[in-house]
Amino acid sequence: MMTKIAQIPNVEFLGDALPFVGRIREIIEAIHLFEDFEADELEGLARYMRCYRAPPGSEVICEGEDGDFMLLLLDGNAEIVKKDVRGLPQIMARAGPGKTLGEMSLIDGAPRFASCIALDAIEFAVLDRETLSRIIAEEPRIGVKLMTELLMLLNQRLRSVTARLLDCMEARRSRIR
Amino acid sequence: MMTKIAQIPNVEFLGDALPFVGRIREIIEAIHLFEDFEADELEGLARYMRCYRAPPGSEVICEGEDGDFMLLLLDGNAEIVKKDVRGLPQIMARAGPGKTLGEMSLIDGAPRFASCIALDAIEFAVLDRETLSRIIAEEPRIGVKLMTELLMLLNQRLRSVTARLLDCMEARRSRIR
Repeated sequence: MMTKIAQIPNVEFLGDALPFVGRIREIIEAIHLFEDFEADELEGLARYMRCYRAPPGSEVICEGEDGDFMLLLLDGNAEIVKKDVRGLPQIMARAGPGKTLGEMSLIDGAPRFASCIALDAIEFAVLDRETLSRIIAEEPRIGVKLMTELLMLLNQRLRSVTARLLDCMEARRSRIR
Repeated sequence: MMTKIAQIPNVEFLGDALPFVGRIREIIEAIHLFEDFEADELEGLARYMRCYRAPPGSEVICEGEDGDFMLLLLDGNAEIVKKDVRGLPQIMARAGPGKTLGEMSLIDGAPRFASCIALDAIEFAVLDRETLSRIIAEEPRIGVKLMTELLMLLNQRLRSVTARLLDCMEARRSRIR
């Protein structure tokens, strides 16, 4: 089942991301995403994104479901939760403003790897696959920059997860010895 | 230090990848990379890539060095080796034809995460950052497809490494219990 963001209970649509450009600009000074964007490119991108608000406890991304959008958290915090082998939810990470969530399914359309649950009232901008294709076709300059940002983001995560995997394997090895 | 592929001892330059398009087409039928490329796009891409041959034992990518290129293995096998906390080389994986190596540094220019050492005589095509930028500027349609492939590739790796990390953490947890 493909869940669209608008189908999630209690999620309130706030319009396109243009009124949030100031907030997005604040955020990108804190994180490294989108920092190569000129002001007019950021506005161009914001026209394509949709903003939403969700109350605490909302499961905005649900593990195992198909999904084709990513979120950029603008306000509030969320928890990333994944079920362990016994089916018990384990908190994997906490995400605050400027954090992107769900980009793996945006890219490959495969089922969600983990769930994202709002801890406070959260506000976020949404980018889905159809919109990403539209940006690339209609605004190739912005499209290429956006893809570059996504590549940097995945790459950063891959480096950090791989380093954690090696640490974990090392710790197991020294425990076995 | 930024190591260019041509600086590595015993590496022999074979020209652009155009004569290898047939081989590349064979390979992409076996792997999922580049399968969205039309024949003419694949030829367009091949014009930008450079092919090389290296003898067994060549360290074509060297852990810790700066590097800005990725390889597509066309023939032969390589080992991916990373030093552990004690500085001892550990074999992490083996790569055969169709496998890409070094794409993380192509994207972010950060030092190489691991080394790649030829097990046999290997042949490979090289794509560096400057060429990637040139493709995007000169052949945006091919550039976008190439970036899409890189996104899919990193995404696949991220899913698989994350799954391995969770397994490892689970195994440690059950051992501690």
